[in-house]
Order: sequence, then C-alpha cells, then structure tokens
Amino acid sequence: MGNEVRKDYLLNRYVIIASQRAKRPSDFSPAPSEIGASKNCPFCPGNEHLTPPADLVYLQKNNEVVKEQDHEDLRHKEWLVRCFENLYPALSPHATEVKPNNDSYIGREVYGYHEIIVESPDHLEQPSVARPRQLELMFDASLELLRRYYNDKSIEYTQIFRNHRREAGASLSHPHTQIIASSIIPSAIATELESASKYFKEEKRCIFCRIIEDEQRSPRLIYKNDEFLVIAPWASIHPFEFWIIPQHHKSDILDITDSEKRSFARTLRLCLGSLATLLGNPPYNYGFHISPKQDRKNEYYHWHLEVYPKLSIWGGFELSTGMYINITPPELAAECLREEVKNQERTLTI
Amino acid sequence: MGNEVRKDYLLNRYVIIASQRAKRPSDFSPAPSEIGASKNCPFCPGNEHLTPPADLVYLQKNNEVVKEQDHEDLRHKEWLVRCFENLYPALSPHATEVKPNNDSYIGREVYGYHEIIVESPDHLEQPSVARPRQLELMFDASLELLRRYYNDKSIEYTQIFRNHRREAGASLSHPHTQIIASSIIPSAIATELESASKYFKEEKRCIFCRIIEDEQRSPRLIYKNDEFLVIAPWASIHPFEFWIIPQHHKSDILDITDSEKRSFARTLRLCLGSLATLLGNPPYNYGFHISPKQDRKNEYYHWHLEVYPKLSIWGGFELSTGMYINITPPELAAECLREEVKNQERTLTI
Repeated sequence: MGNEVRKDYLLNRYVIIASQRAKRPSDFSPAPSEIGASKNCPFCPGNEHLTPPADLVYLQKNNEVVKEQDHEDLRHKEWLVRCFENLYPALSPHATEVKPNNDSYIGREVYGYHEIIVESPDHLEQPSVARPRQLELMFDASLELLRRYYNDKSIEYTQIFRNHRREAGASLSHPHTQIIASSIIPSAIATELESASKYFKEEKRCIFCRIIEDEQRSPRLIYKNDEFLVIAPWASIHPFEFWIIPQHHKSDILDITDSEKRSFARTLRLCLGSLATLLGNPPYNYGFHISPKQDRKNEYYHWHLEVYPKLSIWGGFELSTGMYINITPPELAAECLREEVKNQERTLTI
Repeated sequence: MGNEVRKDYLLNRYVIIASQRAKRPSDFSPAPSEIGASKNCPFCPGNEHLTPPADLVYLQKNNEVVKEQDHEDLRHKEWLVRCFENLYPALSPHATEVKPNNDSYIGREVYGYHEIIVESPDHLEQPSVARPRQLELMFDASLELLRRYYNDKSIEYTQIFRNHRREAGASLSHPHTQIIASSIIPSAIATELESASKYFKEEKRCIFCRIIEDEQRSPRLIYKNDEFLVIAPWASIHPFEFWIIPQHHKSDILDITDSEKRSFARTLRLCLGSLATLLGNPPYNYGFHISPKQDRKNEYYHWHLEVYPKLSIWGGFELSTGMYINITPPELAAECLREEVKNQERTLTI
C-alpha cells in the first residue's frame, strides 16, 4: 500500500500517513526511566516552602475533600492537590504598564496567569497509574482555576495542558498540570473555532457531533462509554495520537456534571495507562481544547482533550511547511490501544 | 523588564519573549558529540551501492565541475555532490492509483519526490565548517533539482530543508540536505503567501522589502552584504533563530545569479559557523521559503531561508495553541551572533 495524504477534519492541514514504513509499538524504543522522588523535589509534600503559597489546595478533612486558599505563613502540608503560580510565569497578572515600543511591529507586555497544579502528593502517581479518584480531583482543580480566570474580565482564553517527561518539556518529574490564561485567543485555537463555525454555517450541524457519529464504529475507535468517545483521529499528526470527546454536544467544559467528571477521569486513566504499557511510558503532551470565554455557549464546538505522544521528531520539513509525516497509521494505533484498554478495563477499580 | 508578547511580521502567530529568564548562549548545554565517519555510512564515498543510483551527481573533470546523471550499473565514485531518491520516500513518483477510500474524509495517495542531496564526500564537512565553494555546489544542486521538479506538471511546491543532528531529526550524520516536491501547497506556506499578498494589496509594497528596510539598522541585524541581509526576526519562535533574505526583491529563487549563489554560500557558512561556535554545534533545522511554481514571478514575496536552532522543547502549550514561548530575545541572539560573525569573517577564505 502506498503512502496516503490526509486532510484534517477541520483544518487546512495535511499529514502523510507513511504506511510503507508503518511503525508498531515494538518499533519504538522506550524512553530511559526517570529518577524518582528526591528530598529536593519542590512539588513533594514537606517542600512547600520551595514554591509560592498555594492559591488553591484540596485537603482531606474528616471524610470529606475540602477546597481552601493558602497564605504566606500557612503552607498546608496534608494536601491532595496543590495549585500555585509558576515560579517563572510566561504571563503574569502583575504585568503593569504597556511597554513603550519603538519598533514598528506589534508587541506588548503580557497580562495573564501561569499556574502549576500538583496532581498528587505521591511523586510516582503519574496519570497512567493513578487512582481515578485522584485524577478526578486534579481535573476538578483545573476547572476550578478555569472558572476563576474567567471571572477576570481581561482573560479571553485558558489553556490547560500537561507535559510528561523531560523529552516532552517537563522540567520536573513530579506529576503536574499547567494552566496558562491570557487575553489573546491563540492562533491554533482561533483557526479551529473559525473552521468549526464555518462548518456549522454550511452544514447546519456541529462538526464534532458528526465526527462522533462517523467514528463510533470506525477502525479508529479506541474506547467508548455513555459519556466519552476516544479515537485515533483520521489525520493524526503524531504516532498513537488520541482524542477524548464528550459523546453529547458540550461547548462549555464548565457545564460538566459530577458523573461526567468521574467518567472522564476513568477514561483518561485507561487510555494513558494503555499508552504507557504499550510504549514503555513514553513522553507525551496533552491539551484541552475549549471554547473561548466570550462564546462558551455555542452550537458549533465541542470541548475535547488531544493527547500527543512524543515518538518522533519534527524536522525541517514539518517546521517549514506545517505538513506532517506520521509513521503509524491511526487505524493501527487504534487497534493496539483498543486491545490494551480492554485488558486494563478488567482490572481497574475506583 | 516584563515578558512581552509579539505578533509575527506576517502571520497571526504570537510569541512570548521571556526576557525575565533570558538565556544567553552559555546557558544552553552543548549537545553530546556525534560519531564520525564509519565504514557503514551509506553516504560516504565507496558505499554508493548502499543507496539508489544518483539522478544528479557533480564530478570534478580536469579543472571543471560537471553535472551528470548516474545509472544502475555505473555508480560514480569521485563525486563532489550526489543526489538520489530517499530509500523511504514520504512521497513517490511511482504512486499509481488513487486509493479507493471508504471513509468520508479527504485522503488520497501521494504523488511527488523525496530526494537526498549528499553535500560533500567528506563525512565531517558540515556547513558550519565547510568550504564556501562546497556549499555553493550543494546549493546549486538543490536549485537544479528544483528546476527539474518544476518541469513536472503535477508538482506545485518544493521544500528544500536540512536537519542537523539526531535531536533535529537527522537519522544519519553525514552532511545531507533533503528535498520534497508535491502537488500540494502546504498550509504554512499557503498562509504565508496569502498574508504577503494581502499586505501587498493594502500597502502597495512587498512585506519583505519593508522588513529589509526596517531591520537594516535594527538591534536584530546579524550580518549584511550587498546581496543578503541576516536578521534575528522580530517574533522569533526559536532561540537564536535567524533568516537570510535577499537584499533586493526576488520572488523566484531560480532567478539567482552566479555571484548571488556564491554570496549566499558564504553568508550561510558564516552564520552557521557562528551558531556552532557560540552554542557548541547545536542541532538545527532549516528550510527555504519560496514562491509556489505557478506564481513564481510576483511582486509580494521574497524567497528566503529560515534557520531554527533546536534549543528548547515545545510542550503541550505550544502544540495546543500555536503560541510560543521564546527564552532568548531576538535582540540578544542577534548581538551574540553579530559579534561572532565579525570574528569568523576575518579568517574565512574562499
């Protein structure tokens, strides 16, 4: 079979699916193992003095989980999830003045937020092995911060994302999520929203609702339950890329119910656990794609999560053209992940 | 000084210039050194049987350089530059039929070319240390192939690019360039051309001519001569990124003169040599940005080369948003490179 060029569901973006040299999981060499917890890990319990005070912390009190804010002289020790400002924020709410700009090009100081969510007190509780209940708390904390940022009138978009392992940009190995909120709707998101909106105008339906219908029984299906569908997308640009999409139209992630949160955590755990087992705990990045603040209730867009395993390197071709070469056809990726998810589902408890 | 958000000259693309944690050359750790020539290097002279026959080869005959085509039973040994089809082509001129497609999304088999240009018989003659005369031959071979592909009526765009070191996607260390020609104008190129064309309609001038005028004396200037300007672009998304742009309006790279070719080779050698000295031979990618075949003679676009050193990792934020964080302000990168280019210019012969 020859190589095939595929166009993205939405974007004017092409990928070459290189079936001729198709790579199965065993063709990728596993990343070397990383060092575990250390006394110096600033995200481990007991080292709270090495980070800024938490602005959101989940605590176990009696038999309940409660949320609190921290302050300078009281750094909670017995936390379940802990959120604080990044020590080197890319954007900051303390940015004051617009910088005088002598250049003729567009530039300005940045206003926004850049926070860390420490996902577990346990240095080794990566999402691939985490208790689903813990992932649910982590997810809940992300949404709590998102809600908070959206109360700031200067914020237009919030990116919740995760880098796993040094090769994917994580400078610390303790499980953590990052969240960046800014006054700009970034170009990739803007393009996605525009394309989705255009599709809606032309076809009178949401493109994600169509994808869900099409992929429900396709060779790219990885997993589904009542709340979520997991697929290897048609024009995956990364080997073993997968998306988790709500089964029913949901433009605003903040409309999620408690049982959907629980289901999402379990789905994420199953898929990341399967990826780790299949490929030897590979580096990956993921990002939530959500509607921008001003247009959260709409008919044309579904929030979803996109997971990108880092198993290949983008070279001069990809960086210059915005066109990609994927050496694992999504149908093959889905087949491998689907089998492994079935295995893991049998043994996964709450 | 706070961080600053900058918009690209052309694209709807933003970068956060993180001045607060600005990184100088000495803050980056040099990549480990790579293994030199080996008996098994398929690109070294004597191993021509390990690759397809050359479809273009530069030979020294008497005191002249001549170009020839090779054939199956005659694999030239005494070559200066050698071009052949990639053993695992991403695109192929042998693609025959459009693949029957049962899916409702857009996909098709790929027609095109994917070639390797071995830049020198010497395994260690990387562009950063190469004889400018050798780089000129390599550049000339790229243009020769480009001209050839443009004679194929199915070809619309040709990407000439280079991956340096394993970390930047080079699977072999012997100096080589790659060239991919296809019937698609890739999205990043299409967007760049559209924006340039729109700018021309609005401002009645070429955006690159404007950039050249603006940056001629800016803090982002790295080097200039009569034919080329080298700058760290205003909204660089990579640390130490630089562009080489013709000083005078040139939309079609094939219109280049012999003396411009010579000047380009020398400029490239100076800049890559300086980058290697400053940062310990770092991995990098580069790509030529050129006009598409059908619209090569135009008023709105300049061909140019963009060089991206690989000194940082794109994480979930960059991959999800298409917005970047650059930890080396281009003004700092330009200052360091400018000084080093001055040093190297004093000693560089032909």
